[in-house]
Amino acid sequence: MADFPESVFVREEGPREGIQIETRPLKTENKIRFIESLAETGVEEIHCVSFVNPKKVPGMADAAEVIRGIDRRPGVKYLGLFLNMKGLERALTLPVDIEGAIRVSASESFSRRNTGMNLEETLEEQRRYLSVYKQRGIPVEFGYIMTSFGCNLEGEISTEQVVLMVRLLEKVAGEQGIRLRGIYLADTVGWATPPEIERKIGAVRERWPDFEIGLHLHDTRGVGLANAYAGLRLGVARFDTSCAGLGGCPFTGAGAAGNICTEDFVFMCEEMGISTGIDLERLIECGRLAEEIFFRTLPGKLVRAGSLKGFRRSHDVA
Amino acid sequence: MADFPESVFVREEGPREGIQIETRPLKTENKIRFIESLAETGVEEIHCVSFVNPKKVPGMADAAEVIRGIDRRPGVKYLGLFLNMKGLERALTLPVDIEGAIRVSASESFSRRNTGMNLEETLEEQRRYLSVYKQRGIPVEFGYIMTSFGCNLEGEISTEQVVLMVRLLEKVAGEQGIRLRGIYLADTVGWATPPEIERKIGAVRERWPDFEIGLHLHDTRGVGLANAYAGLRLGVARFDTSCAGLGGCPFTGAGAAGNICTEDFVFMCEEMGISTGIDLERLIECGRLAEEIFFRTLPGKLVRAGSLKGFRRSHDVA
Repeated sequence: MADFPESVFVREEGPREGIQIETRPLKTENKIRFIESLAETGVEEIHCVSFVNPKKVPGMADAAEVIRGIDRRPGVKYLGLFLNMKGLERALTLPVDIEGAIRVSASESFSRRNTGMNLEETLEEQRRYLSVYKQRGIPVEFGYIMTSFGCNLEGEISTEQVVLMVRLLEKVAGEQGIRLRGIYLADTVGWATPPEIERKIGAVRERWPDFEIGLHLHDTRGVGLANAYAGLRLGVARFDTSCAGLGGCPFTGAGAAGNICTEDFVFMCEEMGISTGIDLERLIECGRLAEEIFFRTLPGKLVRAGSLKGFRRSHDVA
Repeated sequence: MADFPESVFVREEGPREGIQIETRPLKTENKIRFIESLAETGVEEIHCVSFVNPKKVPGMADAAEVIRGIDRRPGVKYLGLFLNMKGLERALTLPVDIEGAIRVSASESFSRRNTGMNLEETLEEQRRYLSVYKQRGIPVEFGYIMTSFGCNLEGEISTEQVVLMVRLLEKVAGEQGIRLRGIYLADTVGWATPPEIERKIGAVRERWPDFEIGLHLHDTRGVGLANAYAGLRLGVARFDTSCAGLGGCPFTGAGAAGNICTEDFVFMCEEMGISTGIDLERLIECGRLAEEIFFRTLPGKLVRAGSLKGFRRSHDVA
């Protein structure tokens, strides 16, 4: 029996993911315009930028200007991502929303490659984040487990390994008297398939029945929305998605797809009677704007095909 | 509870779908090369061409040469599609495999637009096909219901309408003493969503429990593989797919996606433990060849990302 949620919380990852992967220079004003348009759709959280080394990710060199330039809409969170304490410290000097998250990678090799830290060092870093969150009054809600479904360096990631990571994040939070609200499983490099989604969510649910579960899915191998559907069937109600399918996978190679596409996912949910709180027609317009700003055809399908509601309306059919 | 099949039968639609939608001229020898490569992957049926008016579909003008030029591999069917008696008669003069199929559209408006025939005329045409099949000893196995999930002219298609169409095809076959083996539901213009897949398959199953059910899915709105997964859960074991996602939707507009991508679908099945009989690595090579021949980036994801088996092997990971 399916256990579909009544509504889902969709976090928009497009600006950050898109800017991160794009090699051509983008105008700061266009980045801001894109973020502001997304905020008009009903999306409540937008990952706008990441505070990383601009030598490694030149597109993020103007992250501070982007954040300062946004005409903020009340009720919307404009998030910035950070991968180390230096990034967090930079974020704290800016008018950016900071998610009080703790993160670990299920693949230690991936962690070393991506952040230079092994598991123990990563956990130490999370402890430092938690202290900062506490000082600043930033609420801590979710733990993130990257490469939950597989890793290009270590291959398969076992269910036991994911369970162990949840336990470690729970422990690190517990040390500071914090009870996590839930866990996001991230398919960082596109290894997930529907049965793996079921296995891993099942294992986390069994041990932590009160945890909310989120999915951060990539469409690297085309099965992203099938994975999302498998998650929805199990009642997962939190998803990270990317407008027009912006983004990519620096670990898989040129042209590989990024996060699942927000419009296509919102379309699927709404057609299934699962509410998203997002205006799909406006979102499709954002997808079109993304193609204009990023100068390329993006993988999202609704940008070209349109929604069915829009179709029904314009053609006067049932 | 899911009722996954142990194996699925995959029919390749790429050559026909791709040639049909492509506006630039393609070399006959390249069409043949593509079909021959597909036949090396383990695919047992390939829709190669359609016998339609070359004034309307210029890419099919050399359909006869393509069919005559193929170096046929034993055990593989090289199919040609026809939409009227003239097409069938042309096919009968050529060394092409003819599927003894009968077809009807659940949307009469679509039928009129696509073939110029209303429902009654369509059924009459099917009776004539059946007579020809009988004369020629062509086995009749499946009935096809186009626009089973919705239509750009009539909008939603009700479950009752699909059930009625199955009944009519069953009756037309029965008149000539033929018992159909099963029914393909075709999402001809990309309206299907997972709950509609469940509803319509459920309704056909309930009334015809012995019928094999097939799905012809388009990825027009990005949910094609989620729809396929919903079908697999219900035990559907026959799918039409298109190499690299070749094709499009002449009814939806420029750039709209075509059939679900064969590689991505085969990948999903094999990772789920559902056997396809297809060599995925060879199939990915066919997808790369398709991009070369059709001069464009195609929607299939595995062409860029590769399979996980291939990855595991080349990186020596579990």
